[in-house]
Amino acid sequence: MPVSAQAQERRIALIAGNGSLPCQIADALSRAGRDFRIVAIKGEADERTRALASTELGWGEIGRLYKFLKKTDCQDVLLIGGVSKRPDFTSILGDFGTLKRLPTIIRALAGGDDSLLTKVIRLFEDEGYRVVGIKDVAPQLLAASGVLGKIQPKDNDWRDLELALQATRKLGELDIGQAAIAVGGRVVALEGAEGTDAMIERCAELKSIGRIRAKGRTGVLVKTAKPEQDLRVDLPAVGPRTIELALAAGLAGIAVEAHGALIAEKEETLRRADSSGLFVVGVDKSADDGAPEA
Amino acid sequence: MPVSAQAQERRIALIAGNGSLPCQIADALSRAGRDFRIVAIKGEADERTRALASTELGWGEIGRLYKFLKKTDCQDVLLIGGVSKRPDFTSILGDFGTLKRLPTIIRALAGGDDSLLTKVIRLFEDEGYRVVGIKDVAPQLLAASGVLGKIQPKDNDWRDLELALQATRKLGELDIGQAAIAVGGRVVALEGAEGTDAMIERCAELKSIGRIRAKGRTGVLVKTAKPEQDLRVDLPAVGPRTIELALAAGLAGIAVEAHGALIAEKEETLRRADSSGLFVVGVDKSADDGAPEA
Repeated sequence: MPVSAQAQERRIALIAGNGSLPCQIADALSRAGRDFRIVAIKGEADERTRALASTELGWGEIGRLYKFLKKTDCQDVLLIGGVSKRPDFTSILGDFGTLKRLPTIIRALAGGDDSLLTKVIRLFEDEGYRVVGIKDVAPQLLAASGVLGKIQPKDNDWRDLELALQATRKLGELDIGQAAIAVGGRVVALEGAEGTDAMIERCAELKSIGRIRAKGRTGVLVKTAKPEQDLRVDLPAVGPRTIELALAAGLAGIAVEAHGALIAEKEETLRRADSSGLFVVGVDKSADDGAPEA
Repeated sequence: MPVSAQAQERRIALIAGNGSLPCQIADALSRAGRDFRIVAIKGEADERTRALASTELGWGEIGRLYKFLKKTDCQDVLLIGGVSKRPDFTSILGDFGTLKRLPTIIRALAGGDDSLLTKVIRLFEDEGYRVVGIKDVAPQLLAASGVLGKIQPKDNDWRDLELALQATRKLGELDIGQAAIAVGGRVVALEGAEGTDAMIERCAELKSIGRIRAKGRTGVLVKTAKPEQDLRVDLPAVGPRTIELALAAGLAGIAVEAHGALIAEKEETLRRADSSGLFVVGVDKSADDGAPEA
């Protein structure tokens, strides 16, 4: 998936939250010879990210952010890394540029998580910036299609995978969670507001108290994007921690949507999966849903 | 909903697990002048149930159970009350009648929960018994349609109710859980193997750590039957404990399927809901799904 010549020329601002992903993106962009700047989000970006960052800004410094983008001639914006909590109203009242935009920002902060992200995109677009995603600038970081590690799923694993996949599709239709777990031919856990990690931990607990019965290593976690999900700002992701939790829950493996999910620290994640005997699969969107495989 | 004359004449065996429901059914049957016997399941039936029971049998005494049914001329069987755990293989090797039927029973115990119950029904039917449900013998114990307590849902409550109801329908299509919670226009929790109570508790935790944001009392628990669910042996139920948990989770109310769910200890449940300011609603099956309102 080559990056278009036009995109090559534009300078990207990485607005970096927590986790190791911002540094991985920076690394991928460097290798590709792309020009970029990093803006670390105060209280979120980790030490390595902050070391690479050109500046560090808090939630309330939106005016300063736009000034930085203008000064450094960044035309594209990539929002990357997690934010551990949504900012509250008091923490965004930081500078004049923020105050000026307050009515717009307040509107953006109201409502559910997904519409918030969509509105954050609109905030940038209204200022003339283009919001890009990992798919646009570092598609090699997304999950490929097929069995990605050394472990092959067995027949019953494929069945659990299919069941959990169906469940995530239904969840997606309702814009609820991204992940589901099936064990022994039965969907046992569905992700809601708790998030994927907490859902896997629940599965481990339910196994330990015998509420989910399973002999040996069995069950599959599937994580896919919701149809309405804007993959530029909200990409389903798994990583080393997911493998760790899946192992603790006695699962046989995990599956993510090919080209539509991120495997954070890919080499480390797959190495851990291989050494733990867990499979990792990239599943293609079902052929009949008509969605383009961009 | 009158009980048919034929059904009136048959003697019913209540095979009673835990909880107060067996006694409530016994009470309802007595008032209706129905003839019945109670078989308490050892280690499950509570003290009151055991006081009313004609006999008490363990999981392994299936041969003795059939003998009892024959001796007392019970033609109908009602499986009622919860079982805290599925019996393991060693605990069912109780008597000769069990051993004789072991191949059938082993087949019945294999597979998921729902098919297990279906197979348990078949075990009784194969012996010539008819398995009946609460709907058949005490329909007055099921939830009626409409607002059942004194508290009326507000507009946003109806919206959350509708969202959670949609979610339970999707879950039902996949034969997963029975319950969902929506808060502030967003489905936040879906029931898997953990069960309804644990799901409500999770919702309370997510609110307390700010993962679900809600001002004041808001959000609705909806519990409905799955399309494939056999209501004779597996009826969605709420009770005083549900109200307690919903209150702790800061929900505004609960909704169950009218004529397809049980409100255990109805008066006590509604009294607690009223005094806690929670609404309780019986929702009709959607008009367009064509399911008969039997």
